[in-house]
Amino acid sequence: MKENEQSEITVSHEWNTMNVNRPPVTVIGLGMMGSALAQTFLKEGHQTTVWNRSAGKADALMEQGAKVASTVAEAIAASPLVVICVLDYGAVHAILEQAGEILADRVVVNLTNGTQAQARQTAAFAAGWGAEYLDGGIMAVPQMIGSPGALLLYSGSQKAFQTYRPTLEGLGAVTYLGDDPGLAPLYDLALLSAMYGMFGGFFHAVAMVRSEQFQAEAFTSLVIPWLQAMTASLPGLAQAVDADQHRTDVSSLIINQTGFANIIDTCLELGVSPELMTPIQGLINRGVAEGYGSDGLSRLVELIRKPVSA
Amino acid sequence: MKENEQSEITVSHEWNTMNVNRPPVTVIGLGMMGSALAQTFLKEGHQTTVWNRSAGKADALMEQGAKVASTVAEAIAASPLVVICVLDYGAVHAILEQAGEILADRVVVNLTNGTQAQARQTAAFAAGWGAEYLDGGIMAVPQMIGSPGALLLYSGSQKAFQTYRPTLEGLGAVTYLGDDPGLAPLYDLALLSAMYGMFGGFFHAVAMVRSEQFQAEAFTSLVIPWLQAMTASLPGLAQAVDADQHRTDVSSLIINQTGFANIIDTCLELGVSPELMTPIQGLINRGVAEGYGSDGLSRLVELIRKPVSA
Ligand SMILES: NC(=O)c1ccc[n+]([C@@H]2O[C@H](COP(=O)([O-])OP(=O)(O)OC[C@H]3O[C@@H](n4cnc5c(N)ncnc54)[C@H](OP(=O)(O)O)[C@@H]3O)[C@@H](O)[C@H]2O)c1
Ligand SMILES: NC(=O)c1ccc[n+]([C@@H]2O[C@H](COP(=O)([O-])OP(=O)(O)OC[C@H]3O[C@@H](n4cnc5c(N)ncnc54)[C@H](OP(=O)(O)O)[C@@H]3O)[C@@H](O)[C@H]2O)c1
Repeated sequence: MKENEQSEITVSHEWNTMNVNRPPVTVIGLGMMGSALAQTFLKEGHQTTVWNRSAGKADALMEQGAKVASTVAEAIAASPLVVICVLDYGAVHAILEQAGEILADRVVVNLTNGTQAQARQTAAFAAGWGAEYLDGGIMAVPQMIGSPGALLLYSGSQKAFQTYRPTLEGLGAVTYLGDDPGLAPLYDLALLSAMYGMFGGFFHAVAMVRSEQFQAEAFTSLVIPWLQAMTASLPGLAQAVDADQHRTDVSSLIINQTGFANIIDTCLELGVSPELMTPIQGLINRGVAEGYGSDGLSRLVELIRKPVSA
Repeated sequence: MKENEQSEITVSHEWNTMNVNRPPVTVIGLGMMGSALAQTFLKEGHQTTVWNRSAGKADALMEQGAKVASTVAEAIAASPLVVICVLDYGAVHAILEQAGEILADRVVVNLTNGTQAQARQTAAFAAGWGAEYLDGGIMAVPQMIGSPGALLLYSGSQKAFQTYRPTLEGLGAVTYLGDDPGLAPLYDLALLSAMYGMFGGFFHAVAMVRSEQFQAEAFTSLVIPWLQAMTASLPGLAQAVDADQHRTDVSSLIINQTGFANIIDTCLELGVSPELMTPIQGLINRGVAEGYGSDGLSRLVELIRKPVSA
């Protein structure tokens, strides 16, 4: 019986921890990301209620212990903390409008990708029903949720953030940006831009080496350390932008212009579309044409902040 | 006298090492990169001869012990190993044509950025004068030369690479890609594409946060770990490309299309030109329109390898 006793003690201890530090959580939206969020809350020991528009997506989570709500209202009623992660803000509003007064005293954490304006509007909508609102940006792929490598940005109700911080930390590292709900979307979209740029460059590079019958996978062993080494240039570029001081001892726009022509020529020879590279080339050429040929690449930021038409 | 004796022994030992492992080296072209190369050879203990088209750029190197040649011919005659790093292949040929038969038995290492075709043509030119030719791509900024973080890609004469490998390793880590001189330019231009993509994304992101009065430098403390985390996605994307198998459990083109509209909308609100982002958006939209909405981003590589017009 000793073994049983021990296991009973363990269970009751876990239950206790769950009540104090692990509030019940509702997850609405069980796509790739929402499922990863719900699964992580379950692993962390939260009583987790889930809802998804189409049936079937909750099955695996139910086996792992999730309660499956049959309506949005039931899902929101089940927990003080409601996490929403769906396609877009249109879907968020379709969901919240089914809730109405059940939202009173809930904390709504919306992890759906959107704009600053959408976040502010949704915060006002939630406030209208007496809910606290936190907007969030997930800087991670679903497979990273629950690991320290995942970063989640939050903005909006500071009270809500402080109350649920330990729970939110279960999903990944957290950064609270301020009480304007639009801040998380701003930083989220900026970071996504940086990611899309890196992915676009990578796809272009892979198209080049694949055109010469080299394996993309082998190429990643060169490209990953290279990109990581080049991230060391970013603080210097950022300082140049902040100071609006673009002199360089690294490499001039003219040298970049000259090398860029080689990229484009080679793509045309290989039959690779240069469409992901020509806009950067266009900017470099514009910088040189405007008399900034001896400046460094940081100058390009000034050119996209002042569009040609302005 | 004991101290003097010791110092003499040290000097003669170094001199000895220099003769055996540190052949005399000539560096032609003393721009930002050529100067860094010459300075590193000097630090490594090579007898270093330099030449630059315009006067003045050799002054600092001369103080550090470099011999300054007054003609290209004199520079090439001075060392068995001749490293060239100038603006473009037009400049390389302007230089080599001043050398002619002095090139016989030299090893020419050309670290100037160029295309596969230019590298092959220059190798043939050098061979015509009895020189061995190595083409190289410098995957580093000048400040990194001489550190293990610098990577230099080489292709062309294997014999030349093997003979001078220890000398070339003084500049940074080396990768020999094969005897086709065009391989270093191919990989160089592919890696540069990846870098330009990453820089373009970063510049766009910085323009966004600067438009809302945030400092670019503070933003780098978010963007660097984010980009480094996202490089973890590259091997999976590469495998998908190699296998031409683009199903995803990470994120679909539709989800990316939806989020992308938020980036563009926000840029228009902020007055940031979306020109560095619209080509990636265009590709994602094209992928969705062609019926690949549930595929992952790796699908985009197929779209740039088969241009619309093809
Ligand atoms: N995947 C990633 O790597 C990643 C990374 C960071 C952030 N995000 C963000 O996370 C959010 C979800 O992405 P995901 O990858 O999980 O997408 P997903 O797998 O395509 O799932 C989309 C979810 O939205 C729901 N939905 C769509 N329209 C709806 C509506 N009108 N009413 C109610 N529910 C609706 C879907 O329900 P049905 O099952 O009924 O269609 C599904 O649960 C997006 O904002 C995305 O930008 C994703
Ligand atoms: N800087 C970097 O971060 C970097 C990184 C990797 C690779 N690279 C490559 O390294 C090479 C040199 O770049 P850099 O940054 O050193 O450029 P740079 O500072 O602009 O120097 C250009 C050099 O080329 C010489 N040159 C130009 N036209 C010439 C001609 N017709 N005849 C003889 N010499 C000529 C210049 O001589 P004058 O002094 O007489 O003008 C100068 O020495 C380029 O191919 C570049 O792509 C540079």
